[in-house]
Amino acid sequence: MFIKTIIILCVVSIFFVLYLTRYVLKKDTGTKAMREIAEAIRQGADAFMKRQNKTIAVLSVLVSFGILLIYSIRGDLNLGIQTSVAFLLGAFCSACAGVIGMWISTRANVRTASAVKRDLNEALKISLYGGAISGLVIVTLSLLGIVILFLLYGGNPVETPFLIIGYGFGASFVALFAQLGGGIYTKAADLGADLVGKVEENIPEDDPRNPAVIADLVGDNVGDCAGRGADLFESTAAENIGAMILGVAITKLTGNPTWVFFPLIMRAIGLISTIIGILFVKMKNGDEDPMHALDRGYIVTDIVGALAFFYITKTFLGENWFWFFIAGIIGIVTNILLVKITQYYTTQEYRPVKEIAKSSITGVATNILSGLAVAFESTFLPIVTITIALLLSFYAGAKGAPPGHSALLYGLYGTAIATMGKLICAAYILAMDTLGPIVDNAGGIVEMSGEPKSIRKKTDKLDALGNTTKALTKGYAVGTAVLATFLLVAAYMEAVTNLTGVPFEVINIADVKVFGGAMIGAVLIFVFSGVTLMAVSKAAQYLIEEVRRQFKEKKGILKGTEKPDYAECVDITTKGALKQMILPGLLVIIFPTVTGYILKAEAMGAFLIVATIVGVLVSNLMNNGGGAWDNAKKYIETGKHGGRGTEAHDASIVGDTIGDPFKDTVGPSLHVVIKLLSTITLVLAPLFV
Amino acid sequence: MFIKTIIILCVVSIFFVLYLTRYVLKKDTGTKAMREIAEAIRQGADAFMKRQNKTIAVLSVLVSFGILLIYSIRGDLNLGIQTSVAFLLGAFCSACAGVIGMWISTRANVRTASAVKRDLNEALKISLYGGAISGLVIVTLSLLGIVILFLLYGGNPVETPFLIIGYGFGASFVALFAQLGGGIYTKAADLGADLVGKVEENIPEDDPRNPAVIADLVGDNVGDCAGRGADLFESTAAENIGAMILGVAITKLTGNPTWVFFPLIMRAIGLISTIIGILFVKMKNGDEDPMHALDRGYIVTDIVGALAFFYITKTFLGENWFWFFIAGIIGIVTNILLVKITQYYTTQEYRPVKEIAKSSITGVATNILSGLAVAFESTFLPIVTITIALLLSFYAGAKGAPPGHSALLYGLYGTAIATMGKLICAAYILAMDTLGPIVDNAGGIVEMSGEPKSIRKKTDKLDALGNTTKALTKGYAVGTAVLATFLLVAAYMEAVTNLTGVPFEVINIADVKVFGGAMIGAVLIFVFSGVTLMAVSKAAQYLIEEVRRQFKEKKGILKGTEKPDYAECVDITTKGALKQMILPGLLVIIFPTVTGYILKAEAMGAFLIVATIVGVLVSNLMNNGGGAWDNAKKYIETGKHGGRGTEAHDASIVGDTIGDPFKDTVGPSLHVVIKLLSTITLVLAPLFV
Repeated sequence: MFIKTIIILCVVSIFFVLYLTRYVLKKDTGTKAMREIAEAIRQGADAFMKRQNKTIAVLSVLVSFGILLIYSIRGDLNLGIQTSVAFLLGAFCSACAGVIGMWISTRANVRTASAVKRDLNEALKISLYGGAISGLVIVTLSLLGIVILFLLYGGNPVETPFLIIGYGFGASFVALFAQLGGGIYTKAADLGADLVGKVEENIPEDDPRNPAVIADLVGDNVGDCAGRGADLFESTAAENIGAMILGVAITKLTGNPTWVFFPLIMRAIGLISTIIGILFVKMKNGDEDPMHALDRGYIVTDIVGALAFFYITKTFLGENWFWFFIAGIIGIVTNILLVKITQYYTTQEYRPVKEIAKSSITGVATNILSGLAVAFESTFLPIVTITIALLLSFYAGAKGAPPGHSALLYGLYGTAIATMGKLICAAYILAMDTLGPIVDNAGGIVEMSGEPKSIRKKTDKLDALGNTTKALTKGYAVGTAVLATFLLVAAYMEAVTNLTGVPFEVINIADVKVFGGAMIGAVLIFVFSGVTLMAVSKAAQYLIEEVRRQFKEKKGILKGTEKPDYAECVDITTKGALKQMILPGLLVIIFPTVTGYILKAEAMGAFLIVATIVGVLVSNLMNNGGGAWDNAKKYIETGKHGGRGTEAHDASIVGDTIGDPFKDTVGPSLHVVIKLLSTITLVLAPLFV
Repeated sequence: MFIKTIIILCVVSIFFVLYLTRYVLKKDTGTKAMREIAEAIRQGADAFMKRQNKTIAVLSVLVSFGILLIYSIRGDLNLGIQTSVAFLLGAFCSACAGVIGMWISTRANVRTASAVKRDLNEALKISLYGGAISGLVIVTLSLLGIVILFLLYGGNPVETPFLIIGYGFGASFVALFAQLGGGIYTKAADLGADLVGKVEENIPEDDPRNPAVIADLVGDNVGDCAGRGADLFESTAAENIGAMILGVAITKLTGNPTWVFFPLIMRAIGLISTIIGILFVKMKNGDEDPMHALDRGYIVTDIVGALAFFYITKTFLGENWFWFFIAGIIGIVTNILLVKITQYYTTQEYRPVKEIAKSSITGVATNILSGLAVAFESTFLPIVTITIALLLSFYAGAKGAPPGHSALLYGLYGTAIATMGKLICAAYILAMDTLGPIVDNAGGIVEMSGEPKSIRKKTDKLDALGNTTKALTKGYAVGTAVLATFLLVAAYMEAVTNLTGVPFEVINIADVKVFGGAMIGAVLIFVFSGVTLMAVSKAAQYLIEEVRRQFKEKKGILKGTEKPDYAECVDITTKGALKQMILPGLLVIIFPTVTGYILKAEAMGAFLIVATIVGVLVSNLMNNGGGAWDNAKKYIETGKHGGRGTEAHDASIVGDTIGDPFKDTVGPSLHVVIKLLSTITLVLAPLFV
């Protein structure tokens, strides 16, 4: 019955996606100039995706053989095949989600640009629907993939969950490279375009004379859109599987399979809530702040989700259902708090951004120091919030344990339900996030196609909206990562217990080996961050040299009499990004494999936990720092501290440039890393025992 | 017998210190101009120290009452009094060590400056002897303090160690504020002097027209010299006590009190080895690279130390002594490796610094991104080295366990011995480190007193030497912190066991409360780093405004016809630094107290461990990043990438400015924080059970 309901809800979601797609594609594609630019962006993005997917496909096949090998050495050839197939399916679905998201966003961009000329509300709808297509496809695919595997592998609620853990790893694996490649691409292109165009030659942003401008617009799609999509795809996949494995333990005790299917149902309900929420988005009177319209949709999604959640906990989770309902509500409230905290640290109204702006008066050095100070400091409130949420949802879950049952187990399930509560609105959040690159692109297309300033002003309004939604999503994604990981650690311990038959209940970090594992886990995050930052810097340098070369060799470009070679810039950035994504990607695979093999399962648990904690800290630092620098610049541009053209403004531009790879490459990649570590330890558990 | 030997060796050390002091003070104090400048520096440093010590004294008294209160609530008034008195003695000794170090370094500076005019070798000797006075006083005091308390509290080898844990906390407490206040002062002064002087007005470093120049020179003394001294004072104190507590556990089993006294003997031996090493320092032929001369002394110290160590392990540690000897050697080797790794990341000969220098060509943004990339990356090798050292010394110790004895306990003692091995050369390292501010000051005095360029060139040579030794010390200090903490965690668990009577053997980080403790511990390090960075930035802004004001109001300053008001700058920086040190300092006290009180002893263990791991990572990042930026600038100044005056050089100056508070304020403060957390948990353990 559960499976059937889930499939039906997925089908509803697919039909809605088709409706949205039809809505978007029917819109006109604007002037000839717009179409030409959009075509160039599309080609660049397609070329990048094709090459990236080829690389990822090769790597995925290699890893699937590796999994097969490890399992067969342990004599579990059958389990090895099942895990490998699940891995490949997860990888395939994840790649598909990226391709579909990219396909629609490179079509919605130009239609949004054209619609801006007529009606801002229509433009908002096109871009949001474009984003919603990504969001819904991603969540639906992640759910359907699991359901298919579940049916394929026999569908026994207490056995099958262990057979499909490869699915989560496949999703994470592709997400890692998609986020890394896309993230490096987008910021290398951005840095290249800005440093030579804006800083050296002093031409405005998105100016068609800048050879790197198309690469920059392509970057928005491949980084923010495809990358973030893959990120949340794996979040939902990993969380689903982790919660199912915990559910197995309870199902074994109670004989009731609901606990296994519950996470999937929650996710399916999230789909429907998101659909309803999206239908509510409309700018009142046509000139309302578009953020208010989006907020309304978000609230509707949350309320519908909470009501449905109330109904299903009451129906399915036994007489102590209320405690589980509380755990879910804790998840929803945590979401809201994290979003507010992110706003505090990254928007212009509050102290942190103002302080950075003020320190820009004394130059670049003080701008950067205050930015870093804010970045470090901004980790505090989110971590405390998450810690409290974790403790409360655990105790709520434990309270829900029937007499005589393990409070620990139900407590863990409580944290799982909090995560599910957090993820109810995943598709909606994703829709808002993917709206970002679409409106950003629309702005670029309007600028480059020579539309009048009044139109550009309208797209600026949408652009600002995109920046806000992007920042919020990150606050959201990080919180999910921690809650999900705590759950995945518990799942890992269950999986190891399942493998060895010996209960694995304690990770004693005062043991010297376990302490060693923790140290290596923590340092992985730092090394990964360093290597990824360096990757952006290197890929940007290739592009900077190319742009300089073009300006030097073709003197007509700057005068506007000669067309720059956009394609060459796109190509160089693509090659650079794909080359540079390999090293950080491999680190994340090799570190846990080697450490786990040498130090074994318990140390690996500490590795996972401490890497997650440190990963959340560093990604918070990167996301918030980047956002704060960005908005400090924008704050000065509103005329504060002298406004544009002052030394303070110049200093704030440098801060923004440094913040870019913080918030768009390293920060988001770390989300993926955190979850990949959870799924890789689940899959490689046989190697660690 | 042990106590007597230790006292005798301490007395030898004191006599040697008197000999060195006489040597230094007998030297001439140079020209009238030199004496005037030196007097101004001395007055500024004294004024700062006096005010700082007053603030610290007030805080210390408050904390000692807090301790008394906590213990008396638990009904242990007696233990509370003993712990409070130990705390105050530790705080007092630590403050004394700082005052003595500062006293001599503000006298050795001008004598070094004057000696440079005669003979570089003599100048080297004066500055090293000045540093050695600090080094020896610090280690001797930390040892004597413990011995005095030990005798005062009855001297029972299995009971007394628990009564004196307050001593370590007192030392850490003062060290924290000394390092924070001094670190903020020195970098605020440096930033202020550079940003207005060098960057805005384009006058050279140490130019007497810069009103902040004396404040900058005072900063070298109060930050590098007093701060680092307090840091290593607490290292030795905390490590001594931690190792003694572990020793108690073994003594209880074997009935042999050697295990308790062994750490103290090791330290006393270190004193004598250092004395011998220092006597070996002499520049051959008078024109040898002074670093070689220092290296020779270091090697002699290590060899003498290792031989003595061989003798005492063989004599005192039973028939399995050889395994403990191996553990000590692992500590010594780890030292050498960590120093080499630090050199790799921060000196001009290798890839990292060269890469930063190269990326400066494309501007400030790429310089900073590569610098941060290197900083993150540079954490890898030290952590792996420390992890391996920890595992090996643990296994060596465990091998040394007599049949039937707990391998765990002896394994922990093995890591303790590795730490002792690392700390054998502590006084020598400290002497090299304190040499830094002395020669730096000497350079400033020579420049400001209008000596000819040829003399300035000579002091530059010494200055470069100081930079190198300072970088090495940091690599050294961080490694010690981790090894010591692992040991202190074990001591903490012993202390809790001792309090409750229930064996406390497991810190299960998979438990939700313990996981929460770990998260809060980790975030403390980030918040502390952010707040401290902000503190430097704020204190610098006070000074920047003052310097700008002076330039504006007294037009004659820049022409050299009017004298700037140095004292006002010193005063403003002092007030700023003391004000700004309070918040970060309080954080480090409040976080563990509150977390431990709410989440209790086991969670506090995880707090401590994870805070240490993250603390080591961030302080490595800060130290190495700062060092690398500094040397990338110097690399460009040797003429690479166009040399001085190019855009690349300008970019590298900004990088260096950002790196300064990284390496001289936040990084070193974190060392202290790590150890303070260990000692505060030891002292507050009654609150957590």
